Amino acid sequence: MQSCITIEQLEPPEIHVLRLGHRPERDKRITTHVILVARAFGARAVYIADVVDEKLEQTVRKVLETWGGKYFSLIMGVNPRKLVKEWKNSGGTVVHLTMYGLPIDEVVDDVRKSKKVLVVVGAEKVPRWVFEEADLNVAIGNQPHSEVSALAVFLDRLREGRELSLCFPDAKMYIVPSAKGKKVVRTG
Amino acid sequence: MQSCITIEQLEPPEIHVLRLGHRPERDKRITTHVILVARAFGARAVYIADVVDEKLEQTVRKVLETWGGKYFSLIMGVNPRKLVKEWKNSGGTVVHLTMYGLPIDEVVDDVRKSKKVLVVVGAEKVPRWVFEEADLNVAIGNQPHSEVSALAVFLDRLREGRELSLCFPDAKMYIVPSAKGKKVVRTG
Repeated sequence: MQSCITIEQLEPPEIHVLRLGHRPERDKRITTHVILVARAFGARAVYIADVVDEKLEQTVRKVLETWGGKYFSLIMGVNPRKLVKEWKNSGGTVVHLTMYGLPIDEVVDDVRKSKKVLVVVGAEKVPRWVFEEADLNVAIGNQPHSEVSALAVFLDRLREGRELSLCFPDAKMYIVPSAKGKKVVRTG
Repeated sequence: MQSCITIEQLEPPEIHVLRLGHRPERDKRITTHVILVARAFGARAVYIADVVDEKLEQTVRKVLETWGGKYFSLIMGVNPRKLVKEWKNSGGTVVHLTMYGLPIDEVVDDVRKSKKVLVVVGAEKVPRWVFEEADLNVAIGNQPHSEVSALAVFLDRLREGRELSLCFPDAKMYIVPSAKGKKVVRTG
């Protein structure tokens, strides 16, 4: 397996992601991509606020079976206000990604000092309490783009690119980078 | 308006994006997010291979009217092989983003030397000719995530974060970054 670093070497901060406003029909692919980014960029968990969507569960199970990451959890039907409150009470930092927030470059050093960070990403309309309860409202640029790209760039800046070398030792297969074509190694 | 840099100051390279495999029903939100990332991170155009999807056109028109970027184009129903061939014949570089490719950090300096770059992003199954015809197959990590996040991290690395300060002087409104809540300024 190529040289890689463990999830423990990436941390702190430990990263969890809270996805707000998931609508199973409309958002299934976007939320799937949020989950895939969270796993690939070194988060430990994604919480889906309010709803339970079995299709997301199936997708995550398949990805973990093939590509590894058994420490990664998907937790659905979560009460988001309660989670945010508990997170803050236990000493964690809550970062809300929003185009209205402060530039990532101004706040990333502060976020790096946290032991654990809950990254909140919304869908179209985010309720006001999220802006108020978050410790930091952070913008990945002040233009509309995507919760998928915002989460990825945020985690890439936070981990200074090291997350792209994250190990998944329990994977059934891994990729050997190549200039042309696809090189996949099956383990075990 | 807050301090910002023009698209001309961001370039070279000039960036265009080719989206392969768009299926209007299934992919409408993902392709919309690809387009929004392209615009927000300083690309000049997105080409949609093979299909024409009027809903994408409407979305782009509304975003440009509100948030600016009149130099940005959406071009649909493009023959992707022909576009790739023409791009290479005219001296441009073709970069295919794929989890099977070479690590971004190994190739980004080379990409920065190009005058113009066509960034190719696929949907689920990318045909073999794309791997073969691309000048570079580039991975944003070798784990599955998303074309939306791959494009964003690629452009962020290429532009070293400067793209987050891109100006849109023809915008009807812009955001003033704030610690809590939403500050929007309407112009004109």
